[in-house]
Amino acid sequence: MRDIIKLENAPRISSYYSVVGSHERNGPLGDRFDEFSLDDKFEKDSWEKSESEMQRLAVVGALKKGDLKDTDIDLLLAGDLLNQCVGSNYGLVDFDIPYVGLYGACSTCALGLALGALLYNSGSCKRLVSVTSSHFCASERQFRFPLEYGGQRTPTSQWTVTGSGAFVLGNEGKVSIKEIVFGKSVDMGINDINNMGAAMAPACIDTIKRYFSNSDYSVEDFDLIATGDLGYEGSKILRDLLLSEGIDIRKSHDDCGLMIYDRKRQDKHAGGSGCGCSASVLAGDIMKRLEAGELKRVLFIGTGALMSPLTLYQGGSIPAVAHLVHLEG
Amino acid sequence: MRDIIKLENAPRISSYYSVVGSHERNGPLGDRFDEFSLDDKFEKDSWEKSESEMQRLAVVGALKKGDLKDTDIDLLLAGDLLNQCVGSNYGLVDFDIPYVGLYGACSTCALGLALGALLYNSGSCKRLVSVTSSHFCASERQFRFPLEYGGQRTPTSQWTVTGSGAFVLGNEGKVSIKEIVFGKSVDMGINDINNMGAAMAPACIDTIKRYFSNSDYSVEDFDLIATGDLGYEGSKILRDLLLSEGIDIRKSHDDCGLMIYDRKRQDKHAGGSGCGCSASVLAGDIMKRLEAGELKRVLFIGTGALMSPLTLYQGGSIPAVAHLVHLEG
Repeated sequence: MRDIIKLENAPRISSYYSVVGSHERNGPLGDRFDEFSLDDKFEKDSWEKSESEMQRLAVVGALKKGDLKDTDIDLLLAGDLLNQCVGSNYGLVDFDIPYVGLYGACSTCALGLALGALLYNSGSCKRLVSVTSSHFCASERQFRFPLEYGGQRTPTSQWTVTGSGAFVLGNEGKVSIKEIVFGKSVDMGINDINNMGAAMAPACIDTIKRYFSNSDYSVEDFDLIATGDLGYEGSKILRDLLLSEGIDIRKSHDDCGLMIYDRKRQDKHAGGSGCGCSASVLAGDIMKRLEAGELKRVLFIGTGALMSPLTLYQGGSIPAVAHLVHLEG
Repeated sequence: MRDIIKLENAPRISSYYSVVGSHERNGPLGDRFDEFSLDDKFEKDSWEKSESEMQRLAVVGALKKGDLKDTDIDLLLAGDLLNQCVGSNYGLVDFDIPYVGLYGACSTCALGLALGALLYNSGSCKRLVSVTSSHFCASERQFRFPLEYGGQRTPTSQWTVTGSGAFVLGNEGKVSIKEIVFGKSVDMGINDINNMGAAMAPACIDTIKRYFSNSDYSVEDFDLIATGDLGYEGSKILRDLLLSEGIDIRKSHDDCGLMIYDRKRQDKHAGGSGCGCSASVLAGDIMKRLEAGELKRVLFIGTGALMSPLTLYQGGSIPAVAHLVHLEG
């Protein structure tokens, strides 16, 4: 299993729900998300509480859509970017469901789906929920500067998505998880906190190469190879470097960080990022296109930058990881 | 599976290794740990790097003891207390092994063993490593005050253990993981960052009640019920409240936070805590007593407080979680 794990008893994504903030609502996928808050506050008095509330709303929404209650779910898998993962810890405390916390930075959505799919596949769990979130305002003050400071952003910086996506894995639904690849941690020496795309691209390349070197499928078999979230910088590096190794994903590649904002109309520099980016794009857009038959086979690859501000102040570079999930409609 | 998951294809703990700092080396279990650093630095120039180095040494030690190399391991499960889990992220980047990051605060050792055991049980992984760590000096400055400040500690405060424990799960070894229970998140309104034991005890009670309400075993079947880490405060609350509900664990209960330091000789207030506490006590002491036949059946229950300093500044209380692993020699 070191590379691809094939799921014989493949779980289906039975239900899913997306919750976003104002910038995401105003973006190209705006009307595809299930719920939004135009002041990004979700009626809470701190950005951290707003993020927790998004996760809670996403799980409530996914359960409701699937006509499920807490006791129908065997396990909650959750994670976010906040210190000690408090977005998830506080957002999910009211659910009467066993709780597993994950940390994979922006790869956490794919990580939760992959682990959840394995646990379903083994028969240990009949139904699980995987949920992740991020909030621009909470992330800015934690990772960079408080909003009030009005700091200039570099052209390579990505905009943390205010959003959350929840997925119920079970035996119903049109989309199944066929294969997974857990990523290895890769550090190529990038130490620019404002260029996460460059830091994450090598881990993504490693995972994609491990997949296609060992798979029965080729790039052409996939309607969409969706990374999340490399943005403009990382996506270009990914495509170019893979091409130089003979893997041409240019026709089918898109990145959740590029899909969620309009580059011309919205000033988001290198695109979106955050645990909520790939989660909300998958729940808001990709899942719906898979269910409609518009997409048949999708590789969904979550990419995460595994540093903290402190490790960069101490001169460290940025290790990254990329987990892969093969979805079929 | 909402409560107990029985593992028919139970994994064994094939190899394990503990690494600790000076206070732990000077404690009652001092000579049972595999490796130590008397200046707590592990030859690194920051406390965070020292913590990462402990994790690296623990995994290297466990692999070496089991005569294993990176490619023998299917998956690394790891976590710690530092923001964005950088103790694990940076400590494990050099291993050529797929990497899954976890966050369960001080419960992470039990969480990693539980998830790893499930993945082994399902046949998805033949051999996994679970590793966690904490470092007193890195934790103090992140959660409370920099050491140089010389802040007074309250009597109810716990001392974050400088330590790491790594475990290889596979098909060899004398100790197996028979059952697991994933904890639910429980928040009883405690908001004192200096009394984690009180915050975590209710989650531990919930998990223990869920176990014994649904198990074929009774309290008397276990030679040791080891919680990690409630300390003096939390342990007393746990024993008293369980007793009031008719579950008397007083004869077999001990807490990793109580085992690791000498209360009279070492000034550690309410005992030890941290992701490295239960991990190093399990690897340094409990595993050896299981292998020697001194203990036959052990419940190992990791307890984690899921707050961050920021959520407490914002008036939040402390949610907690407790994951249970049933070990047999």
